[in-house]
Amino acid sequence: MNIYDSASTALLTDLYELTMMQGYYLYGRNTDVVFDMFFRKPPFGGGYAVFAGLEPLVRALTKFRFDDEQLSYLSGLGLFKDEFLRFLSTLRFRGDLYAVEEGELVFPGEPLLRVHARMIEAQMIESILLNIINFQTLIATKTARIVEASGDRAVSEFGLRRAQGIDGALSAARAAFVGGAASTSNLLAGKIFGLPVQGTMAHSWVMTFSSEQDAFARYARLYPGHTILLVDTYDTLRQGIPAAIMVFKKLKAAGRKNFGLRLDSGDLEYLSKRARGLLDAAGLKEAKIVASNELDEYIIEELVNKGSPIDIFGVGTKLVTAYDDPALTGIYKLVARKAGKTFVPVIKLSNNPEKTTSPHIKNVMRLYDKEGSMLGDQVFLESERRSLERRAARRLPMVFYHPEYSYESLAMADYADGKVLLRPIMKNGEPVYEFPGLPVLQKRTRSNLQRLHPSFRRLLNPHVYKVSLTKKLIDTKIRMIKKYS
Amino acid sequence: MNIYDSASTALLTDLYELTMMQGYYLYGRNTDVVFDMFFRKPPFGGGYAVFAGLEPLVRALTKFRFDDEQLSYLSGLGLFKDEFLRFLSTLRFRGDLYAVEEGELVFPGEPLLRVHARMIEAQMIESILLNIINFQTLIATKTARIVEASGDRAVSEFGLRRAQGIDGALSAARAAFVGGAASTSNLLAGKIFGLPVQGTMAHSWVMTFSSEQDAFARYARLYPGHTILLVDTYDTLRQGIPAAIMVFKKLKAAGRKNFGLRLDSGDLEYLSKRARGLLDAAGLKEAKIVASNELDEYIIEELVNKGSPIDIFGVGTKLVTAYDDPALTGIYKLVARKAGKTFVPVIKLSNNPEKTTSPHIKNVMRLYDKEGSMLGDQVFLESERRSLERRAARRLPMVFYHPEYSYESLAMADYADGKVLLRPIMKNGEPVYEFPGLPVLQKRTRSNLQRLHPSFRRLLNPHVYKVSLTKKLIDTKIRMIKKYS
Repeated sequence: MNIYDSASTALLTDLYELTMMQGYYLYGRNTDVVFDMFFRKPPFGGGYAVFAGLEPLVRALTKFRFDDEQLSYLSGLGLFKDEFLRFLSTLRFRGDLYAVEEGELVFPGEPLLRVHARMIEAQMIESILLNIINFQTLIATKTARIVEASGDRAVSEFGLRRAQGIDGALSAARAAFVGGAASTSNLLAGKIFGLPVQGTMAHSWVMTFSSEQDAFARYARLYPGHTILLVDTYDTLRQGIPAAIMVFKKLKAAGRKNFGLRLDSGDLEYLSKRARGLLDAAGLKEAKIVASNELDEYIIEELVNKGSPIDIFGVGTKLVTAYDDPALTGIYKLVARKAGKTFVPVIKLSNNPEKTTSPHIKNVMRLYDKEGSMLGDQVFLESERRSLERRAARRLPMVFYHPEYSYESLAMADYADGKVLLRPIMKNGEPVYEFPGLPVLQKRTRSNLQRLHPSFRRLLNPHVYKVSLTKKLIDTKIRMIKKYS
Repeated sequence: MNIYDSASTALLTDLYELTMMQGYYLYGRNTDVVFDMFFRKPPFGGGYAVFAGLEPLVRALTKFRFDDEQLSYLSGLGLFKDEFLRFLSTLRFRGDLYAVEEGELVFPGEPLLRVHARMIEAQMIESILLNIINFQTLIATKTARIVEASGDRAVSEFGLRRAQGIDGALSAARAAFVGGAASTSNLLAGKIFGLPVQGTMAHSWVMTFSSEQDAFARYARLYPGHTILLVDTYDTLRQGIPAAIMVFKKLKAAGRKNFGLRLDSGDLEYLSKRARGLLDAAGLKEAKIVASNELDEYIIEELVNKGSPIDIFGVGTKLVTAYDDPALTGIYKLVARKAGKTFVPVIKLSNNPEKTTSPHIKNVMRLYDKEGSMLGDQVFLESERRSLERRAARRLPMVFYHPEYSYESLAMADYADGKVLLRPIMKNGEPVYEFPGLPVLQKRTRSNLQRLHPSFRRLLNPHVYKVSLTKKLIDTKIRMIKKYS
């Protein structure tokens, strides 16, 4: 059921990848190339994205192969020569992969992943790479925003029923955890990824018994160690909460501490304040209040700002579908190809200038101040890595150019540290990187977010984080644009 | 890789289903019940939804079982008694399922599916039922809107790289076909569901060769039977189209007919008109123009209205993610439970009155005029089915009540036919319905849409289709609301 572990992700690709691959094969064009994956704007109008999906991607790449059934399907399409299909039967991904680590913050215009491979292999993995990284990065980012808005309250993901398909739910649960969610309601995700699972009762439980009181009492008898009662089946204030309070008093008398109620409709600010008042008046200060019902970061921020005494936010639809911006439009572009013994840069121009790619083999250096806060990123050519690292070691100024008005620049001198972001993840098709567990990734995300000034994390209209190409990279790009114009 | 065929969808559920199931089991509450699935508003601000996902759902239900590995996971959570886990090991879905057929149009407030089962089984299938039906219905509906906007032009789905996970792409390809898409780019979806696949080249193909001309010529040599050239890698009008025209002339001279170009950036109205002019001037009237680049139904409608000479629309992100409304918020509610020998209605009230459910065992009768156009739907109690069918046979007036202002009503007398929508699909856990193939479903969707007046199909602010509860059902609902208030 872990579809990434399935034997046959090879066909999970677009037909045009295969028609191109056959062309490269038959024309002897299977040269060494380099592809970059990047995105052009942060989702949700936000200031950053949280990179996620690397481990599932690497698992998929290591298993990439065409089996007989798939080859016979391809053969039936009438587009492919037997010679090419025989070649496909032995094809594996044997390239190198460089990537940012999961939980790292990433920004528009910088490479998140870089693939060095033969043209056919690099092309073969495009669709699955984009599918996995786009979606998981999107959901990790959405969750980080929701967690940011929630302050120190816990966020539980329970979007399975509204997710976009089965894997829409599974991958979302994983990415939500990377982004900061405390738990998921999805048992299969819990099992596959080892995530904490959470959940108590639905309205149907309450409706099955002759009274709400009876439904609550029976639930508490069964689950005295964790008793969250859903109080809005009939009338929250007049029936649900009073019935819940009677049950909580008994639990408390029996020495139980982990109980509370869930509000799933009505005005959550008003009801949570009224509920808190009723609970406190009943001497139940330890009773928790869980709130759900189409929550997102904006509603949560408003509830928190208004002092709503909510302890846990349950978030479903808006989180797992990234409701207000449901696709990260990350792209995967050829940036260099081998000509003779060296790599030469290639470029994709566009009638939309912002869609023109940055050519050649690149990496990213992130600069930090002495408190560890992020200052800005330099996208550089790997060929200038040594000189850049030397500059950084000596704290020489780094020049940042405005992304559109390149005559605008500033020299950054007050940095204390520089870190290169793209690391080797696979070498000749084999993983060379040790994947940390998901709890480590969640901590890493949190720690990275703390290193980003709050103005960049603002939900609306955030400050724009500085990402600059180096002078040498800008020169390369302009030279190539002129060549084709 | 067809995840619906996987052995173990059982754990694809929310934890609270299991905690409730254990409660029903231990308290001897596993009575016969009836659940409805319905939604409260059509997606995209539209006037209808296209029902889809039934066959995948039934496949999943027939395979629903907890295996040892899953039971051992559940055991490790420390919430479940051995007795209950042993019970789960033998648990299958043995209930009855009634549903609307795929490709049928559906509207807010009417049941799309109805489950008759023991409480535990009915609860067990909630999450997967909602996940599959919500998503596929959403995407079939989105596609129907895009196809509507496209008029007689073909729509190709190519959203794999932006879909919400792997199944987000697979299920979306299936549902898009039900909704009217001519093809998918996704090879795995093509293989699993037998869909037509489509696709030619990416920018990387063009960038691999020393010139666009060379890239095009080589592609045409390899795929002369279907040659769509992507013309915007460097400069669409000055380089891409002239290079493509040279290739098309050769193809034409060789007797080929199936060729054209794809525009993937820039102003599509302007470029398609310029391209058409250049192609026609070169004597290439048969050359097709394919357009793509973040298209949705609104952009397509505008392009069509402005007479853009585009033959095929390629739609990705906005289709497979249902971008502007990425979740159908369908719900699954208990409506009746057996007390003694008969079923008694149950209701869920709410502080939001529109969230109060319609109780009891219901079905839907759709009324048509003599041209076969849809007039309105009566949601009725199964107990009044005979009398309703007799009324319909004698063309006696049917009363429609306004959904909110029930003192407003109209008597519909001019109908010519009435059809009951929910049919038996599973009996005692076994399918009793023959699933038509996807091409039949696509035709059915098209035919159903033709039976719906265009004012209901308008993209923006459509006419509201009439769905009324019968008098008897309204009386039942009001009686129950009063009982709990």
